[in-house]
Parts: sequence; C-alpha cells; structure tokens
Amino acid sequence: MGYAENQYHPHQRVEIPLPQPFVKSFGNSLKETFFPDDPLRQFKGQPWPRRVLLGFQYFFPILEWGPRYNLQFLRADLVSGITIASLAIPQGISYAKLANLPPILGLYSSFVPPLIYAMMGSSRDLAVGTVAVASLLIASMLGKEVNPVEQPKLYLQLAFTTTFFAGVFQASLGLLRLGFVVDFLSHATIVGFMAGAATVVCLQQLKWILGLQKFTHETDVVSVLRSVFSQTHQWRWESVVLGCSFLFFLLITRFFSKRRPRLFWISAMAPLTSVVLGSLLVYFTHAERHGIQVIGALKKGLNPPSLTELEFGSSHLTLAIKTGIITGVIALAEGIAVGRSFAMFKNYHIDGNKEMIAIGMMNVAGSCTSCYLTTGPFSRSAVNFNAGCKTAVSNIVMSVAVMITLMFLTPLFHYTPLVVLSSIIVAAMLGLIDYEAAIHLWSVDKFDFVVCIAAYSGVVFGSVEIGLVLAVAISLLRVVLFIVRPRTFTLGNIPETPVYRNTEHYPTAVSVPGILILEIAAPIYFANSGYLRERISRWIDEEDDKLQSSQGPSLQYVILNMAAVGAIDTSGLSMLDEIKKNLDRRGLKLVLANPGMEVMKKVKKSKVIEKIGQEWIFLTVGEAVGACNYMLHKFNPPPTKNEDHLQDNWSGNNNNNNV
Amino acid sequence: MGYAENQYHPHQRVEIPLPQPFVKSFGNSLKETFFPDDPLRQFKGQPWPRRVLLGFQYFFPILEWGPRYNLQFLRADLVSGITIASLAIPQGISYAKLANLPPILGLYSSFVPPLIYAMMGSSRDLAVGTVAVASLLIASMLGKEVNPVEQPKLYLQLAFTTTFFAGVFQASLGLLRLGFVVDFLSHATIVGFMAGAATVVCLQQLKWILGLQKFTHETDVVSVLRSVFSQTHQWRWESVVLGCSFLFFLLITRFFSKRRPRLFWISAMAPLTSVVLGSLLVYFTHAERHGIQVIGALKKGLNPPSLTELEFGSSHLTLAIKTGIITGVIALAEGIAVGRSFAMFKNYHIDGNKEMIAIGMMNVAGSCTSCYLTTGPFSRSAVNFNAGCKTAVSNIVMSVAVMITLMFLTPLFHYTPLVVLSSIIVAAMLGLIDYEAAIHLWSVDKFDFVVCIAAYSGVVFGSVEIGLVLAVAISLLRVVLFIVRPRTFTLGNIPETPVYRNTEHYPTAVSVPGILILEIAAPIYFANSGYLRERISRWIDEEDDKLQSSQGPSLQYVILNMAAVGAIDTSGLSMLDEIKKNLDRRGLKLVLANPGMEVMKKVKKSKVIEKIGQEWIFLTVGEAVGACNYMLHKFNPPPTKNEDHLQDNWSGNNNNNNV
Repeated sequence: MGYAENQYHPHQRVEIPLPQPFVKSFGNSLKETFFPDDPLRQFKGQPWPRRVLLGFQYFFPILEWGPRYNLQFLRADLVSGITIASLAIPQGISYAKLANLPPILGLYSSFVPPLIYAMMGSSRDLAVGTVAVASLLIASMLGKEVNPVEQPKLYLQLAFTTTFFAGVFQASLGLLRLGFVVDFLSHATIVGFMAGAATVVCLQQLKWILGLQKFTHETDVVSVLRSVFSQTHQWRWESVVLGCSFLFFLLITRFFSKRRPRLFWISAMAPLTSVVLGSLLVYFTHAERHGIQVIGALKKGLNPPSLTELEFGSSHLTLAIKTGIITGVIALAEGIAVGRSFAMFKNYHIDGNKEMIAIGMMNVAGSCTSCYLTTGPFSRSAVNFNAGCKTAVSNIVMSVAVMITLMFLTPLFHYTPLVVLSSIIVAAMLGLIDYEAAIHLWSVDKFDFVVCIAAYSGVVFGSVEIGLVLAVAISLLRVVLFIVRPRTFTLGNIPETPVYRNTEHYPTAVSVPGILILEIAAPIYFANSGYLRERISRWIDEEDDKLQSSQGPSLQYVILNMAAVGAIDTSGLSMLDEIKKNLDRRGLKLVLANPGMEVMKKVKKSKVIEKIGQEWIFLTVGEAVGACNYMLHKFNPPPTKNEDHLQDNWSGNNNNNNV
Repeated sequence: MGYAENQYHPHQRVEIPLPQPFVKSFGNSLKETFFPDDPLRQFKGQPWPRRVLLGFQYFFPILEWGPRYNLQFLRADLVSGITIASLAIPQGISYAKLANLPPILGLYSSFVPPLIYAMMGSSRDLAVGTVAVASLLIASMLGKEVNPVEQPKLYLQLAFTTTFFAGVFQASLGLLRLGFVVDFLSHATIVGFMAGAATVVCLQQLKWILGLQKFTHETDVVSVLRSVFSQTHQWRWESVVLGCSFLFFLLITRFFSKRRPRLFWISAMAPLTSVVLGSLLVYFTHAERHGIQVIGALKKGLNPPSLTELEFGSSHLTLAIKTGIITGVIALAEGIAVGRSFAMFKNYHIDGNKEMIAIGMMNVAGSCTSCYLTTGPFSRSAVNFNAGCKTAVSNIVMSVAVMITLMFLTPLFHYTPLVVLSSIIVAAMLGLIDYEAAIHLWSVDKFDFVVCIAAYSGVVFGSVEIGLVLAVAISLLRVVLFIVRPRTFTLGNIPETPVYRNTEHYPTAVSVPGILILEIAAPIYFANSGYLRERISRWIDEEDDKLQSSQGPSLQYVILNMAAVGAIDTSGLSMLDEIKKNLDRRGLKLVLANPGMEVMKKVKKSKVIEKIGQEWIFLTVGEAVGACNYMLHKFNPPPTKNEDHLQDNWSGNNNNNNV
C-alpha cells in the first residue's frame, strides 16, 4: 500500500535497547534486589587498613561514635539510663511471668542484651528489653507441647533454644540482606496485630487480677471468657481492688505525662513506684495470706551461663525453630520500626540489615546467658527518647543498674504482688491499641483496614499465628490482585496541550474521533494476559457501539499506551500477538505508544515487533495520535470537526508558553 | 518566602478526583474483577422472551448455530467425525490402561461426553476425549491409597467420584467466573509440564514395551529406571521388536503428514491400522502365548449407569476431591487453550467461562455414565481441525461411531496386544515434548525458561503435583518480585522535544542540571516501600557524588515521575512522607509529576498532599522541570550552559513540526 513513502516521521523513534550479555544483566538484577542501598559504597577507593577499620565500624558502630563521646552526652545518658532501668525491672519481671518463665529471667534479659546492642546497634534511642507480644507467643506456642508447670526445666531449655534460633534467624536475615521479609508485615498488619495481641495479653491478666488459681491455656477471647465466668465464685475481691487501684494510678500518671511531655518521668517511674508500694502493702498487711499471690524468692546473683541448656537434640527441636522464626520476625519488626521512627525524628540514618545483625547477635548472646527473646520495645524506647538519651550508652547505664539490682536488691521483690505486675502489663498494653490508626486506615484505604481487622480478629478469636498468617495472606492477595486484575482506562487529549490523560480522572479530556487510546496500568504477565485480552476487546466493542449510536466516524486505530507496563513475559507477548490478529480481523490498526525498555527488549526478541511493525510504535501518545490522524486525513475525507490541536503533536498553542 | 506570588503557572493542574461513595467504587471493582467481558451486555434492552432465549443460547450454543446447520457442513463433519473416531478408539483404550482402569472405560468416555459437549460447548474444533496427563495423574494419585489390582471396584468408584468432583469444580469455576485460576498455568508452565508428563508417560510404557510383569508404582525417572534395570533378565525381545516396529510406523506416518498437511488422514488412521495389524498378527501367530500381553475380553454394550458408584461417604473422599480439583484444573487448562487456539485460527470468539461450564457438565454427566475425566486433547482436536470439521457435530459423529463399536465390534479388540497401545501412547507423547518452545523461552525470557525447566524437572524427578506446584510458585514469585523490587530509573530530556525518558533506554537523553528526575515503575505497596526509600536515597547520594566530582551546580530538586505508579497503600503513603522529610533535611525539594487517579485520591485523603504542597504536583515531567528551572533561575544565578530547550515545557523547537 505504499505506506513507507507516505510515512509519518516522528522526531525520535522508540529505541530498541542493545542486547546485554546474560551474566551482566543477571548480575545487575541481583545487585538491585539485594543491595538497594549499596552498602559497599563507602569502601570504594579506600586503602586496605582503612577498609578493615570501616568493616569493624560497620559491625560495631561504637567504634565510630565512641571516640567522639563526651561528658555532656554522659550526663544525658545517665539520666535516661536510670529512668529506663526503673521501667525495665518491673516490666521485665511481668513479661517473664507472661512467658511462663521464672521472673528472674526478666532481669537477666535486661543485663546482657543491652550491652551487646550498645556495641553493635546503630540506633541511639532504642532501649533493649523483653516485649509482651513475643513473651505471650513463646508461652502459647511452647505451651502447646510442654507444660511449664509440670516440666519447668524442659520448658526453660526450650525457651533458650527458641531465643537462640530467633537470634540466628534475625542475624542471618541481616547478613543475607533479606531484610525485606520484615516489610511483609505492613503498617496495617502491625496496627491490627499489636492491638489484637494487647487485647489477648490483657485478657490473660484477668487470671491475676481476679486472683484465680486455674486458667485456660488457650489465648482466644472465647476460651478465656468461658474460663473466667465458669469460676465466678473463685474471684478474690482483695485482688480485684488492688489491681484496679494500681491500674488507675498507672493510667492517671500516663495521662499527665502525655499532656505535659516534660513530666515524662512521672509515668516512667510509676511502675517502680507501684511495685514498691505494692510490696510494702503486702509486707505490712500480710496480704499474701489473704489470697494475694506474690513473686516469692528471687535468686541473688548475675546471669548463670546457659549454653549447655540449649537443646538441639530434643524431639521438640522443630517447635523451637518454628517458634524462634515467628517470634524473631515479630520482634525484629517492632525493633526496626521503633529504631527507624526515632532516627527519623532526630535526623540520622539507620541501616535495617545492620540492625538485624545487632538484634540477632544480642539474642544469640542472650540465649547463652539465661536471657530470653529481647528487642527494642516501643514504650521503653519512647521513655528513653523523652528522657533525652544521646547514645546507646543509656542501655549500658540501664544494664549496670539492673546488674546492681541482681547482685543486691532481689530480696526486695519477695513480697511484690503479682496483681501489681498485671496492672503494669495492662497499662502498657492499653497504649498499644491504636484505634486512631485504624480509623485513619478506614478513611484512607479500605483494603488496609480489612487487613488490619483481619489481623486483629485472627489474633483475638484464633491465635497469634492465625492472625499473622491471615493478615499477610490478605496483604499479598492485594499485591497479586493488582497484577491479576490490572486497571485499564481510556485516554483523552487535555485541551490546549499535547498531553493525553485518563478521561475518568480529567473529565475535560477529549477523545479523538476514530482513535481509541487505552492505557494498561500494570505489567503484562501470564496471570493477567487472559483478562487483558477480554477487557481490551470489551473496550473496543463499547467504543464501536458508542460510535455507531452517535453516527460519528468509525473506529480505525487502537493505541495502547504502554508507559505503565513495566514488564512483559512470554504469555503477555502472545497476548499482544493475539490482540494484533484480533484487530486485523476487525479491520483496525494496533499502535503502541511509549513502551519501556523491558517491553521493547522482549517485543524485539520475540519478533512480535515485526508483526506490529516498528513504524507503528511511538515515543508518546501524542505522536501516535499525530501519525494516526495523518493517515486518517490522507486516506479518508477529513472529518468536519475542528481538531487542529490534535494534529501537531506537541507544539500546542504557541501563544501559551508562559514557562 | 513569597512563593505564591512568584509561582509558576502550568496550563492544567493535576486534578484531585471527587470522592466516590464506597459502595459504588466497591461495586465497580467487583465488576472489573469478575466481569471483564461484560457477559450481560447482549441482554441489555431486550424484551423478556428474547432474554430467556438468549439465556438458553448462552448455556446451549447448539440452539444458536443448530438452525443454521446445512448439508455442506454435515458432509465435512461426517469426514472429520469418522477420522477422529478412528483415533479415539485406540487412544481411549490406551489411556484407560494408563489410568489403571478397565480399557472399555476409554470407549465409554468417547460416547457420552462428546454428546454433552456438542450441545453446550462453543468451540467448533474441539474433539472431546480422555487425555494422557490426566490419566497418569489419576493413576498416580489414587494409586497412592488404593491398589487398582487388589481393590479394582473401590478404585473404579474412586475414579468416577474424582471425575464427578472435577466436573463440579470445573463448572463452578465457570459459573462463579473464576476462570482466571486457569491463567495461573502460564504458557511456560504448560510447556514444561506437558513435556515432563510426556516423559513420565513414555517411561511408564517401558513396562509393556519390555513385556515386564512387575513394575514400580512411582512415576519419577529414578524409580522407573531402577525398576527397569533391576530386571533386565525379564525383558522380552518379542515385545520389544513389536513395540519398536509399530512406534517406527506411527512416527513415520506422522512425519509424512507433517510435511504434507493434506495427508493428515495417514497419521490419523495409523493408530487404528496398528491396532488392526497388531491384533491380526497376534491372532494368527498366537503370540499371546509367547509373552505378548493382549487386552482380552471387552464387554459388549453401551455405558452402564454409574450414579450409584459415586462414593461420597468413603474414607477416601478427600483424596477424590483433591485429585478431582488438580486433574480438573489441568484438563481445563488443556481444553481451553486448545479451544482458544483453533478459534483464533478460524476467527471466532470463545468465552472461557462458558467453556468451563460445558467441560464441567460433560464430566459430571460422564461420571454418572461410567466415563472418566475427559477434556479437549490437543492431538485429537488438531486432527479434527485438519479433517475440515465445521461444527461440534463432528463430536456427535465420533460418538455414534464409538456407539456402534461398543454395540458390535468390541470382540475384535480381544487380541489387540498391549504393546501396540504403548506404541500409540509413546508416539502421541513424543509430539507433546515441545523443545522448540523451550528454546524460544530461553531466548525471549530467561525467567519463563526457569519456570519451564522447574515444571519439567519437578514432574520428571518428583511427581506431577510437585512439578505443578513448583512452576506455579516460581511464576508467582516473579509477580511478587516485580512488586517487591520495583525498577527505578533516572529520566533525561530527549533533545528537541519536551519528552523525558529513561536515560538507560535513550542514551541521547540529557539530564537537567540541579534536578534529579526519577521514575518508579510499579505500584507502591507495603512490600516495596522500604526498598524504594533506600533506593531513592541511594539515587540521590549517587547524584550528589557525581555533581560534586563534576563541580556542577548542586542538586536542588528531586522529581518523582509517578506515571507508572498504579496504586499506593498506607505504607506507601508514609514512605512518601518519609522521603519528603528526608529531602527537606538535605535542603532538597520533592516534586511529583503525573500521579494517576488512585494516587491522587490517596494522597489527598491521607493529607500527604498538604505536606508535599499541591503546587509541587505537576501534570507532566516537562512541566515539573519547567517549574523547577523557573525557581532555579529566579533564586539562583543562571547557569552558564545553554539549556533553553529545557525552559519551555512543550513548545519544543517550533520549526520542527512536521506533523
């Protein structure tokens, strides 16, 4: 048809990228996948001794900031360290009870891990310690196979082994640069999951607040409420009164501190004050004889080594590994989110993979020194931040304070009532239920809200694992759905510009007679090529119907805007081929606009480009429309409507260049 | 800073879409997800009686084309129907043996299901029958729990139940418009899977070709070869010679037919010819007494009803359901792919969901009339197509031919040697190993090649299910990886145009001094927001380094081109917020270009728009660059280089409008 001679000549053709050697492009993908932040950049062009020092500094950031440490920092870190120690001691004991472990482990866990983190961690604000959710998870997962009351030694060994595997898993994620695993816990998942876990933990505290002796081992709300209401005659009013008073006290101090951030120390000191007051009360009233349960004797002395307690040959090894991985990921997610939030506040950078190594190593070290799983809890780190900490030295101060407690002060906790510890836990947990975040999710993104509610309901009505799996599955479903059901829309010309945009988004955009312009807003993969084929042919049918009823010129060109098609696979290529054949059959011409590098590579390699014709592939939608109009005018009588602005593809209205 | 007064005024602002009522937008998404082809379109505006007729025609397409049927069609369909019957009889018997079912079932299965399909199916070329892969799968999956030799009745019942569930599952997929499940078996998966299954089926035939009595129940290549070579002394040369001769005969006829498509009937008739020759040979030489196994007595008469054989109360019910679903999906994938290929050849449209209902119903009906799983096998349909079939009447002709065989001719198959059936299977299977497609995959798309090889190795070294799961998992991994590790690249100005494109793709594109333009080529979700944050800050670091070493003007603006960002969730929104804070800290300005409707909606709802500033969101990259340049020139001394063409955003070089 002599097309070549009458051809429309655009300024610039769509380039076909030169084929790259496979090894090179594969290496590039690997680099982009695993080293987005290019951690070796600072090593480049350095002499070897400097590289070694930088390497040490990478793993031990204390070598970097240590030499710059001064007295002013120390004063700030002393204050904040002592403040968090006063929070760490009662919280540590409480959470150890929650994990069904001996209370002293809570103190041990606030001694060794903070020291390791102070050397290896890169956050200046993170305060290390045990967390309620991980403690609960350990109790519920290990409790399924081993009863902590009947086999305390085995249970303890399993807890250490779990901690060991959690640490190894965390450190390996960091070393293998697989930190993105944590990203799969989206913000919405964490909001719902934390609120669910907090609810479950609060429900568990009913045991101590009501002074019950027997309690269910399940964590779901139905089992717990059944267990509570089946023994109403066992409720102890003394315990309830004590618990509620301390809870009220803790909540009121938090309320004050929230309204006046300078009074942060009131709420930070409140738990220790409660413990002291509670212990004195029990000591003087002998309330332990009236149904108020107390901690009892705590062993004096520092952490005993526990390397030999790690059980690798036990039949419960799989359980320990599974528990370690799940609790490890959750602890990591919390620790990293907390570190990153405060780093953003204070304008410094945190390397997620490096943090994972630090948190992992501190857990491995902890598992050998009678500690269980630790991370950077939000509440404690917030107190640390508010108390004005400057560096990780505040963790060292806390550690020393806990050490002194372990060596000399443990007998003081003998009469501490358990119900006070429960009040401390409940008060801390209530702060984790972030209903405002849930409302925000609902207003911004309904799907994220569903994820959040799924995580919450899964945890509360099922178990912690069910909630987690449910939320991650729904989140992933969304990602897959984006690909499986990609959006397609028609484009129209924005008046007085050569720009083409979604006609739904820009109602003023006008469509071009005889030309249907479609945009595909996702990569074309096997999972959506069938859908796209059907959807595109429906767009054409609908356009045909519309044109027939409006008696306008018939449809002649279909332009596919490929700008948002980031990738295409072989199924997608055959789909393009099929669409081309389909359009040929209907006497329509297929035109591609703005295909990216990946698409051009594949279209070339698969020879689909020869079927479409390289002269029908354009750099912009404007050029494609220009070419189509050129052909329409050349071979057809010109349409009556004025569409001059559509003819030149980007000169626009030249009087309008107020740039 | 009095910015508002000195503001740059673009032609058109990015619009913020009006908020839609939740119910409406949710309804819209549902429609786009489940009804891409809008199947109810033809019902619109029709009177009720017409709608009922259209409804009947939807489920029974024969009502639509039946009235137009003429004698010319019948002649063509008669020829093709008889041709496929001659293929269907030996193949049916062979595949039934492969499924460890009585050979007569293969004939039964070519009688009832084709009749159902002829009424309900919309393909004109599909020839219905049993397939090797599904037969093998039934044998290997059911065989794990029930031994077909020891418990033949139970095994038969399970096969019928499996067929019933496969049919129900297939029909429900169609009715619930979940046809996209089949799309998850990508082209690459099917190529690898089919080749693997063909290899496995060929290996299984070694039993009959070598004349072995004992054989392994496993299907993987290691077990089969071990079984074969552990009993070399049992090999029967008579059997081997017979098998190889017939195989050679079959392959040579296919070779001829391939070179001259008009001689298709030679290869179509070859299997029946082999059966006849083989049977005569055995009958006259009494070879059955010399180690050549024969089919033996086949019951005369039509399909007995088998509704009462369906076992819903059995302890193997889960197995039957599981086998039904897996074989159902695979059979569906083959049937639909085959139907679609031929429809494309002959330029008519096939509705995938409607086909699923037809195939499902024919299997439900089959399971009640002593048939096992059927679909539209490629080989048989290709013969049908080559023989010049016009409509599904060719299936009816085949069905009648099989009926006559069942009623009168079954005794003729008494002396048919099994080794001939094996040759027929091997010859058919060798055609399924499409190594050219695998080579094409390697050259076009390495990832698809990996998927293909995974499917093949999984089937050959593991089992059919392992291969399938592996291939689908790797395919999905790619989809997820696209989101988890999105591509980002810098954009540059294409000389003499206002267009900005990937600098890697267009080496002539020039970057703009002081401005970094980045494009994000994927939606921003929780799964990639962490990665994008790191990657974008690395881009900025690298740009900074480059500018410092070149002594050029310092970086002042970062433009994010959001054209390819099809969606964003709450994690993505907080990432944008973090990037904004990050850039503020470094004294850089964040500018957005061309955000789509979804992004604008979310950015508005979450109030991130207020942080970025609506005046810093532009319709095109060109406008964004124009605005940045305007600010740069206003508040900084103008750079020395000539960059006039960058200043006006799309007027370009006005002398160049050869549109």
